[in-house]
Amino acid sequence: MSDSTMERLNALLPEWLETSRLHTGQGKVASYIPELVKASQDDLGIHIMDAAGNHVSAGDCGVPFTMQSISKVFTLILALMDHGEEAVFFNVGKEPTGDDYDSMIKLELVEPGIPFNPLINAGAITVSSLVGGDCKEEKSRRILEFFRKLANNERLGYNEDVFRSESESGHLNRSLAYFLKHNGVIKDDVEDVLAVYFRHCSIEVTCADLARMALVLAHDGTDPITGEELIPRRYVQIAKTFMTTCGMYNASGEFAIEVGLPAKSGVSGGILTLVPGQFGIGVVGPALNRKGNSLAGVHLLERLSKEFDWSFF
Amino acid sequence: MSDSTMERLNALLPEWLETSRLHTGQGKVASYIPELVKASQDDLGIHIMDAAGNHVSAGDCGVPFTMQSISKVFTLILALMDHGEEAVFFNVGKEPTGDDYDSMIKLELVEPGIPFNPLINAGAITVSSLVGGDCKEEKSRRILEFFRKLANNERLGYNEDVFRSESESGHLNRSLAYFLKHNGVIKDDVEDVLAVYFRHCSIEVTCADLARMALVLAHDGTDPITGEELIPRRYVQIAKTFMTTCGMYNASGEFAIEVGLPAKSGVSGGILTLVPGQFGIGVVGPALNRKGNSLAGVHLLERLSKEFDWSFF
Amino acid sequence: MSDSTMERLNALLPEWLETSRLHTGQGKVASYIPELVKASQDDLGIHIMDAAGNHVSAGDCGVPFTMQSISKVFTLILALMDHGEEAVFFNVGKEPTGDDYDSMIKLELVEPGIPFNPLINAGAITVSSLVGGDCKEEKSRRILEFFRKLANNERLGYNEDVFRSESESGHLNRSLAYFLKHNGVIKDDVEDVLAVYFRHCSIEVTCADLARMALVLAHDGTDPITGEELIPRRYVQIAKTFMTTCGMYNASGEFAIEVGLPAKSGVSGGILTLVPGQFGIGVVGPALNRKGNSLAGVHLLERLSKEFDWSFF
Amino acid sequence: MSDSTMERLNALLPEWLETSRLHTGQGKVASYIPELVKASQDDLGIHIMDAAGNHVSAGDCGVPFTMQSISKVFTLILALMDHGEEAVFFNVGKEPTGDDYDSMIKLELVEPGIPFNPLINAGAITVSSLVGGDCKEEKSRRILEFFRKLANNERLGYNEDVFRSESESGHLNRSLAYFLKHNGVIKDDVEDVLAVYFRHCSIEVTCADLARMALVLAHDGTDPITGEELIPRRYVQIAKTFMTTCGMYNASGEFAIEVGLPAKSGVSGGILTLVPGQFGIGVVGPALNRKGNSLAGVHLLERLSKEFDWSFF
Repeated sequence: MSDSTMERLNALLPEWLETSRLHTGQGKVASYIPELVKASQDDLGIHIMDAAGNHVSAGDCGVPFTMQSISKVFTLILALMDHGEEAVFFNVGKEPTGDDYDSMIKLELVEPGIPFNPLINAGAITVSSLVGGDCKEEKSRRILEFFRKLANNERLGYNEDVFRSESESGHLNRSLAYFLKHNGVIKDDVEDVLAVYFRHCSIEVTCADLARMALVLAHDGTDPITGEELIPRRYVQIAKTFMTTCGMYNASGEFAIEVGLPAKSGVSGGILTLVPGQFGIGVVGPALNRKGNSLAGVHLLERLSKEFDWSFF
Repeated sequence: MSDSTMERLNALLPEWLETSRLHTGQGKVASYIPELVKASQDDLGIHIMDAAGNHVSAGDCGVPFTMQSISKVFTLILALMDHGEEAVFFNVGKEPTGDDYDSMIKLELVEPGIPFNPLINAGAITVSSLVGGDCKEEKSRRILEFFRKLANNERLGYNEDVFRSESESGHLNRSLAYFLKHNGVIKDDVEDVLAVYFRHCSIEVTCADLARMALVLAHDGTDPITGEELIPRRYVQIAKTFMTTCGMYNASGEFAIEVGLPAKSGVSGGILTLVPGQFGIGVVGPALNRKGNSLAGVHLLERLSKEFDWSFF
Repeated sequence: MSDSTMERLNALLPEWLETSRLHTGQGKVASYIPELVKASQDDLGIHIMDAAGNHVSAGDCGVPFTMQSISKVFTLILALMDHGEEAVFFNVGKEPTGDDYDSMIKLELVEPGIPFNPLINAGAITVSSLVGGDCKEEKSRRILEFFRKLANNERLGYNEDVFRSESESGHLNRSLAYFLKHNGVIKDDVEDVLAVYFRHCSIEVTCADLARMALVLAHDGTDPITGEELIPRRYVQIAKTFMTTCGMYNASGEFAIEVGLPAKSGVSGGILTLVPGQFGIGVVGPALNRKGNSLAGVHLLERLSKEFDWSFF
Repeated sequence: MSDSTMERLNALLPEWLETSRLHTGQGKVASYIPELVKASQDDLGIHIMDAAGNHVSAGDCGVPFTMQSISKVFTLILALMDHGEEAVFFNVGKEPTGDDYDSMIKLELVEPGIPFNPLINAGAITVSSLVGGDCKEEKSRRILEFFRKLANNERLGYNEDVFRSESESGHLNRSLAYFLKHNGVIKDDVEDVLAVYFRHCSIEVTCADLARMALVLAHDGTDPITGEELIPRRYVQIAKTFMTTCGMYNASGEFAIEVGLPAKSGVSGGILTLVPGQFGIGVVGPALNRKGNSLAGVHLLERLSKEFDWSFF
């Protein structure tokens, strides 16, 4: 089945991508981190990889971009591997919120004042504080190493300009973090936690890197190409569940209905998604819709899901 | 695979159920509808049915109870069958809310003021207004007929005491409905819409009925026993997605992680769930946890999901 | 002092009024009650009365309009006269909210779920249910009689078109009222309570009527012209305090700083205000600002307060 | 009138104070700043000063305490004197909120995202950033100097332990400040602004100091004892208005009805209030009620207001 899919993708993906690219004009490149505005409004790229390591790609799939919120999936997994479910979910909940990803409302209004889930900003900052390591440098080093292994790419590194830009302008994340400190959710120094958080958001990848990382999730934690077991299956299951219920910000419900695949987006326009047991997929399209997801990227994934009946619901 | 599962269930289900029953004391029977308080705190029952019509049941599976919120899944499907996706989702959203099921906050705060999804009260009331029929009586008649067909049970009917109790005490639902009328989401007379809503909430079933209805969803809309196609596959897909993201109130995220099956609960203590391609399951346990779901019922489903690795994530 | 003020008013009020009238174009006539839209955008009128019964008026002071929210001040006083402070403030709070006058948020979020004050809609509906009387008709009759005495005008009556229009379209008030019923704040039949509420909102007055009613408040409850004691002084004090902290919706704080007089506005464009110990004032100007107060009316009162140093702060 | 009041106060104040002191046990000393917990639960003191410099005091009026939120009134006045009304009210609103003083909800939900008034924490932090001065040290120096002049007490200084304690534990204020920075309301470095804010909150006073500062407000900005004009009358008017509508946190409405005087409280248990044209009053009673005001202090002021008919409503 996978082979015939690859054949059809080879033949039709470029055309489908160009159709979706027509919609980039309706989106808007993220401007809240000054450095991100430099991305090209019209870019759209995709990379799809199967368990044998074959891939199909189209469009601007070579453009590098920062992971931003996509990194949250893997720092969650690392924190789970470091401390186990109980310790992590003592500090962060399991529920979608319906609010914007940077909202503080539920932290103030809903007892016990922990973030609703690990994929909104408040939750991901909390998770950053839970990654093992004696200092922020070691936490960051361990995260980068883990991401390199998942992407099977030793050259993965930071975009220092984005990191600096985000550190300097990230006042809303600072506000969230101090609120969490006040609530006793974050124990460490707030600036140290934010440094770890901004660092992993600024890790630079291409669609191929995302696809490879996604492929590991699609195969229950084992890299099907190397055969190496990288993540315990239970933690992959947890990650895929969160990706389904909260991976696309407060458009996750719609994405589940229209695409039906676990996915995680970032404000850089990247989307990581996967077809369970089959493909890892990386997408980039910096023009975002109102909810903060790549407009043309979501459009293209809807098309693919319908063409191949990929929804797992 | 299904056969060996049935064998193991036959051997172990009663014991597992009794273990879960020990937790009923920590829950609380719903009191907001006066008539519901009469349910037995310690009841717990389950009925599991496979595609061949074989079943395993245990505990108080013969106790009748009202569907309450479980009915929302099937009125949604009926409204979709009557009007199609576009018309329905013009009036109700696709996102989980993170709020209580009877909350009005997002209706007031979030543009465009439509219910976030069809499984919270505001959304289900809206959906009730969308079911086809010239008057409330016809709408109610069509709903009951549809439910009877799905449950393959011509004797399905209303619990008139619960209906009356809910009509008389349902002021919060009235408040929601008038808010929706103000926002232009409901066009019909509010009391008529509520009559339809309270009617389908008061349809009385047993675990076996729920299991049979769930079995249809588990087989993409076709009753695998009669072979009859009852629901278009796409609408089953939509229903299962909503059940996964919002089916267990604002504990849906946790249920997805701990059980990993599409499900819908009601304040009567009922839960309808399914193993895709395999089983339909009905559960009842009136003692509820803080989020409004059957405490022992959820406990039992977590056990089953772990024993048989049923999570579809 | 009062005499020289009257002289200056006689000379200058028409000119000041015309200056304020220039701003009516920036406002918007209320449209949420269909019947209210018929008011003239450019109207502006004022009537100022002193303790001797002398008055100065200017502009469209003869135009009749419905009291709307202005009536809330006097139903509160009547409920206090009927039941005393303790009974009334068991059901309604004393705090400004900062929210829109028809907001439900605090009812849902803030324990114990009673309205924050008697001048927001939820509070005024609650107060309507507390007015003495065996049935809605008697409550309405007692209210009208009380208002007639305060205005010294036996011909005060209802605008039946506005009453009907508001009854038919008042879904948001219905929603509020059912929420209050759910919270146990309203004990009576909701539609009966709303009938009383809509009735007193639809009492039709002119600026002269408002000025006379305000004059009674300005003189601690005694009509200075007839010498009749109409309201116990303590209840006048309570009313003036609420008018100061919440009388101009969520622009009350600004009005207190810029004008500094107890006042109450209505969506018909009316404003009742007073200079303690001196004047009763009625204003009408149907074009409203964003907060729901007469735009030109507020402008004119700011001018008057500054010219005569009327702020009591 | 004032003389006979002083006589009666001399005779009865100690007894009234002891009656109010009986209620201290129902309150709770503030614990959110670790250093504040050291205050004595049972303390209650008061100092009342008239325009001639005569005073009556009772109870623990010699106990020093930090001004906390009481300082907000005077930094607002100083910012107004430095920049005028327009500049200040471009950055901070004029409305009471109904929310807790440290709430972030309205900052997130209500456009344009500026603090609702200068007496909630978000507003006071904003005002601290507006006080004239090239650096935080100069701002702090100017504030202290101004306060010394108002209190006619050159020895006024900081409680360094409280300052340090508040700086270290003030994560919620940091969170608010970064939110304001994100919204563009605060332009300066956040830590610098907070240093100014925490500094003026930690200025240590006695009831006599508060009474003298209040006396200046009671006499429209002129110290009636020295005859020196210290504050333009308009800014006193603005301050007294805010004290009336928002001075007692979200119990301001109740205080206006039960006491009816402009007042400002602090979590140290201090209350500054005044009888316009007559007295300046300082109170301290560290045991707080649920809204954060001195429980016994409010009790005593209610008694005084009723005995002398002090409500200005």
